[in-house]
Amino acid sequence: MKYISLLGASGSIGMQTLDVIRSHPDQFCLVAMSIGKNHEAARAIIEEFHPELVAVADSAVYDALYREFHGSVKIIFGDEGLVEAATYSKATIVVNALMGSIGLIPTLKAIEARKTIALANKETLVTAGHIVTKAAQNHNVALLPVDSEHSAIFQCLQGEKHNNVEKLILTASGGSFRDCTREHLHHVTVEDALRHPNWSMGAKITIDSATMMNKGLEVIEAHWLFGLPYEQIDVLLHRESIVHSLVQFHDSSVIAQLGTPDMRVPIQYALTYPDRFRLPDARKLNLADIGTLHFQQIDFERYRCLQFAYEAGRAGGSLPTVLNAANEEAVAAFLSGRIRFLMIEDMVEKALEKHEVIKNPSLDEIREVDRETRRYIQSLLT
Amino acid sequence: MKYISLLGASGSIGMQTLDVIRSHPDQFCLVAMSIGKNHEAARAIIEEFHPELVAVADSAVYDALYREFHGSVKIIFGDEGLVEAATYSKATIVVNALMGSIGLIPTLKAIEARKTIALANKETLVTAGHIVTKAAQNHNVALLPVDSEHSAIFQCLQGEKHNNVEKLILTASGGSFRDCTREHLHHVTVEDALRHPNWSMGAKITIDSATMMNKGLEVIEAHWLFGLPYEQIDVLLHRESIVHSLVQFHDSSVIAQLGTPDMRVPIQYALTYPDRFRLPDARKLNLADIGTLHFQQIDFERYRCLQFAYEAGRAGGSLPTVLNAANEEAVAAFLSGRIRFLMIEDMVEKALEKHEVIKNPSLDEIREVDRETRRYIQSLLT
Repeated sequence: MKYISLLGASGSIGMQTLDVIRSHPDQFCLVAMSIGKNHEAARAIIEEFHPELVAVADSAVYDALYREFHGSVKIIFGDEGLVEAATYSKATIVVNALMGSIGLIPTLKAIEARKTIALANKETLVTAGHIVTKAAQNHNVALLPVDSEHSAIFQCLQGEKHNNVEKLILTASGGSFRDCTREHLHHVTVEDALRHPNWSMGAKITIDSATMMNKGLEVIEAHWLFGLPYEQIDVLLHRESIVHSLVQFHDSSVIAQLGTPDMRVPIQYALTYPDRFRLPDARKLNLADIGTLHFQQIDFERYRCLQFAYEAGRAGGSLPTVLNAANEEAVAAFLSGRIRFLMIEDMVEKALEKHEVIKNPSLDEIREVDRETRRYIQSLLT
Repeated sequence: MKYISLLGASGSIGMQTLDVIRSHPDQFCLVAMSIGKNHEAARAIIEEFHPELVAVADSAVYDALYREFHGSVKIIFGDEGLVEAATYSKATIVVNALMGSIGLIPTLKAIEARKTIALANKETLVTAGHIVTKAAQNHNVALLPVDSEHSAIFQCLQGEKHNNVEKLILTASGGSFRDCTREHLHHVTVEDALRHPNWSMGAKITIDSATMMNKGLEVIEAHWLFGLPYEQIDVLLHRESIVHSLVQFHDSSVIAQLGTPDMRVPIQYALTYPDRFRLPDARKLNLADIGTLHFQQIDFERYRCLQFAYEAGRAGGSLPTVLNAANEEAVAAFLSGRIRFLMIEDMVEKALEKHEVIKNPSLDEIREVDRETRRYIQSLLT
């Protein structure tokens, strides 16, 4: 039995993690969780899974849940509550499905508490990869990827020596606008952007997929997760999202992981690793039915955010934090109708240009750079 | 340093094995080899690689090589010579690149001598899979596949538990006639058949590729190599020969091995396993350049030999020996212009129908069934 603490239970990854736990009641037990402000979801999850500890971000939701479950469930509040959930003694594995930079501290605390980390929170590695990977190493803790691309690479690397790797190849669907010209991108709406061709995901990540900032953040994550320089990490356009990523070895052999798009597969793999369990209602891949897989070179002029991510990653230090914070603010501004789609990349570019890189930043410095960058983007918006 | 005995040095796989050895003079050393009747090739190989022992099948070539190299190289003759090469004390790994059923006994003797076996000889497992795999198990000897498809599956299985496998999926290019209607197949010539679209191989295997008997033999080999029932072994048509094979796991994740068609990659992998070495002049796979990969269901009506192979494999016992022997004779008859292309499958079918299966046949019984089948096919030819 694996005892799971699930941070961000009501998000897209969180709900699919619950689906995996639901499929294997004899293998997985939800002992702790965190929730933002989705009261209904929280109540339903508590009633179904009976976690012992629930951390709540929103104070009104906290009050309500406290009234409802006080006595049977420990309901706790705020950032301290989140850390308590991340370090809950009974938990052996922490699934970090939090959105945004709020995910960083709980990851670090969970590492210090020697929990296995199933990591879906990009910001953890993007903004503090140097701190997090070092902590994981020091505490001998496994960082297991949950993202479909990183899980694919992780699966391809099983039984292989890392120094035989020539290249990691992350596939990218190209997002909602892959068939649009750059000219057309000037006029796209939020609704257009939210229509991802292959995956059903949260709004922020769907926009990141359309700008391909998502892939850029994944490149930075891959750099930290697999300890390879950026020259050895490529991105390949692959419309069908069937090949989730590939690894090329020195002998020119390439190992790939494939499947129908279903996030429960990488989530479950992180929970069962190094074993695999059946996933009862997952759709099996049938390549003959699919017929054709397409691959195409990335156009970095077309996807400028991806280029920015490589540059920020290579420069390192505090620059990826700027990339991420600027992008979060700009995407939020786009989603709320304040800026046009192509202004996301312009704003990210401005923030990167303006920033003076701090090498090897501390957590405090990362937080300060994050805040500063957000303030800067807000100042551009007014 | 790995000391290699190479059986069938002048064939297609043999020559490519030598190319791999040539690329890594500090890692591999050819200590023994066998040769058929290619005198020129034998001389060139001896002069370049300086093996200590050379087994020769042809008596005239034996005489000539003996005269030329007697004193510096031990030249030995015939089946006994072959076994001596297969069990040569200094060799740690035996690459069996022999064509046809002559490859069986040397494999068994090499297993008994506890050599690691890099197996390119199909007949070893097709006709005596039950004996060979048992011997390998008893002597704790690794059977490493050299075929690109089996090597692909073997690579995909690294770091995985075999009981998590749902299905092995062997890819098939479809051979020279994949774009022909069945009607058209009545009239094809030997020259047409020898024009394989993706791989440059020997004549017999190129014809087997056109009838897809080759894939059928591979299915039987996969059954023995990976210990899975035929229901868990599929064949998928894939024109480009880029995806060399795939493994589907219970959790619906699929791992595939890819590469530009180059037999040196699987040969080298067998020699370096579980490590990988650089393969200096191998062409790296560039999926963006290739652009599109196609997959298609197999039409068992179109490729009757594949259907026969599944049936022979499922029936087991001596029937795969009949399949293989009948096919060898029929292909030889086609190559020498005595029968038409579609008569290959008719003859194999007749031989299978006529045979009464011996369960769990001994080596002697296998040899006898092999001879009997060949006589029967010859009787059909006169």
